[in-house]
Amino acid sequence: MSENRTEVSTLGEFALIDHLTKNIEIQNASTIVGVGDDAAVIDHFGKQTVVTNDLLIEGVHFDLMYTPLKHLGYKSVVVNVSDIYAMNATPAQIVLSIAFSNRFSVEALDEFYEGVYAACETYGVDLIGGDTCSSQKGFIISCTAIGEVSPDKYVKRNGAQKGNLVCVSGDLGAAYLGLTLLEREKKIFLENPNIQPDLEGEKYIVGRILKPEARKDIVEFLAQNNIQPTAMMDISDGLSSEVLHICKQSNVGCVLYEEKLPIGEETKMAAFKFNLDPTACALSGGEDYELLFTVKQDDYEAISKNTDISIIGYITDEEAGVNIFTKGGNKFPVTAQGWNAFK
Amino acid sequence: MSENRTEVSTLGEFALIDHLTKNIEIQNASTIVGVGDDAAVIDHFGKQTVVTNDLLIEGVHFDLMYTPLKHLGYKSVVVNVSDIYAMNATPAQIVLSIAFSNRFSVEALDEFYEGVYAACETYGVDLIGGDTCSSQKGFIISCTAIGEVSPDKYVKRNGAQKGNLVCVSGDLGAAYLGLTLLEREKKIFLENPNIQPDLEGEKYIVGRILKPEARKDIVEFLAQNNIQPTAMMDISDGLSSEVLHICKQSNVGCVLYEEKLPIGEETKMAAFKFNLDPTACALSGGEDYELLFTVKQDDYEAISKNTDISIIGYITDEEAGVNIFTKGGNKFPVTAQGWNAFK
Repeated sequence: MSENRTEVSTLGEFALIDHLTKNIEIQNASTIVGVGDDAAVIDHFGKQTVVTNDLLIEGVHFDLMYTPLKHLGYKSVVVNVSDIYAMNATPAQIVLSIAFSNRFSVEALDEFYEGVYAACETYGVDLIGGDTCSSQKGFIISCTAIGEVSPDKYVKRNGAQKGNLVCVSGDLGAAYLGLTLLEREKKIFLENPNIQPDLEGEKYIVGRILKPEARKDIVEFLAQNNIQPTAMMDISDGLSSEVLHICKQSNVGCVLYEEKLPIGEETKMAAFKFNLDPTACALSGGEDYELLFTVKQDDYEAISKNTDISIIGYITDEEAGVNIFTKGGNKFPVTAQGWNAFK
Repeated sequence: MSENRTEVSTLGEFALIDHLTKNIEIQNASTIVGVGDDAAVIDHFGKQTVVTNDLLIEGVHFDLMYTPLKHLGYKSVVVNVSDIYAMNATPAQIVLSIAFSNRFSVEALDEFYEGVYAACETYGVDLIGGDTCSSQKGFIISCTAIGEVSPDKYVKRNGAQKGNLVCVSGDLGAAYLGLTLLEREKKIFLENPNIQPDLEGEKYIVGRILKPEARKDIVEFLAQNNIQPTAMMDISDGLSSEVLHICKQSNVGCVLYEEKLPIGEETKMAAFKFNLDPTACALSGGEDYELLFTVKQDDYEAISKNTDISIIGYITDEEAGVNIFTKGGNKFPVTAQGWNAFK
């Protein structure tokens, strides 16, 4: 955090927006009118437009005690572009609105926007508008991401068919363990502020929760290899919850194999330390922002070329239900234990 | 408010979303995929896409003590489609996200969505997505509106030219006086809960703040009469503030005439009652959601046909500044006294 503190009130709303958006350079030809008018204008030149929105609220979705504002800005963009990739589309623009109390200085907002612009650069998206206002309490972020897709290429959740392979990108469970670690360190710190956080050797799992990435590379790989998934979504609430969504919306069942679930070494070690089952973390953890998708069996060979994609099971008849075979050979029904914001 | 109270926790996030969105009927051919996936898909068939977002926060933008939830839902949509009309575009979709604490029941959310759907019907827009989550405190609404426009038809704020006529739709100042009245009645009620609010004869000004409308009819009138405004925006922060925006972005000055400002009889009477200057209310009041626009002098005759449009002045050289001639014949510079969320 910078040593200077400029009160937002010294700028006023419009000067603040000018300050936060003055360095924007438009990256997409489709961005016709950006920040600074009643609305932005986009031309997708024959492609279809894909839109999603997420609200992120301090105390519910993030804790500023251990979340650097720059990371928060980055993540606000990532969780939204991840939804665009989950439609097999390419993100092109974001509209970002924030509300904040007077405990935030202009320098703090600059840090947040540094992360926003870093993510815009990583994913090639333009910030084209938004709203800036005050809140009575806490920091509130609303991000709308807009993408483009050819009319025959977008992928919904309801197209999985019997015999399809169930695939997942990257590895699972790390974000949940990163969060568990940060929550533990926060508790220790609050009990005794002299004890400094012990994050040694936990860089991977902490990075997964604080600075997740969206799987742009996977969507590009699918396009380059002419693989059209039959269903796809991103894993924000946990694998179990998302698999159940795809099966319910596609009217199919599925079989998963515990031994096929991709779980990193750091994740296993952290789970061991916290006395948690790594498989449970992978199934119910959430916030990994990996892609879960189904493909036809014909795509097996092409999919196998990508070592960062795991085939974790296959689609069955609806009547067979949604089940997982454990390493011990037992079969259990998959249940959603994912994050429920209202419980 | 219904007598029943169903806790949101009895439904859970996904069942709640199903409950709130189950009756959606798609109204626009451009809505390809709506609620229920990672993102929505829109096809504007050769038109350009127009996007805007607003955050509305309890205690900052609205007070639930005197704002019925149904009106709030309606207004959440209206303030966004108003921004789309201000681009001379037609709204077609909205993405609406809400966050709320556990003091809100399913019945309360139903009332809010009743208003949302009523506005969707009035303006012909489809609700195509959003996020639903909990807040630690208060009710938070994020609405993104998406519209469509022919590439040569959208109107920015920076096109006003010397000699253009300055026009405004409807009448001004009423919403501010409605808010002033509601705030006074709230104060009286808090001091003595036995005194019932006295809103007799104030239906117009109260309606203007609680249930504003966006000027769909004006944008349609402009299209039917082949009038292409040179600059346009909606009046949310007050006429003075918006006139200054257009002049600054267009590098022009302007002259307004106090006697030409459209102020309704109810507004004048309410201003008199509160010992306020009606002209000051019209200039600085805000929240009227009327359209402010500039047109070429050639359009004078066509504009005059619409009795709901007032010509309030004309555009000058930048050097002449932004001024208003009072009824007494004095000239004053126009200054922004509009709403500033950070002061």
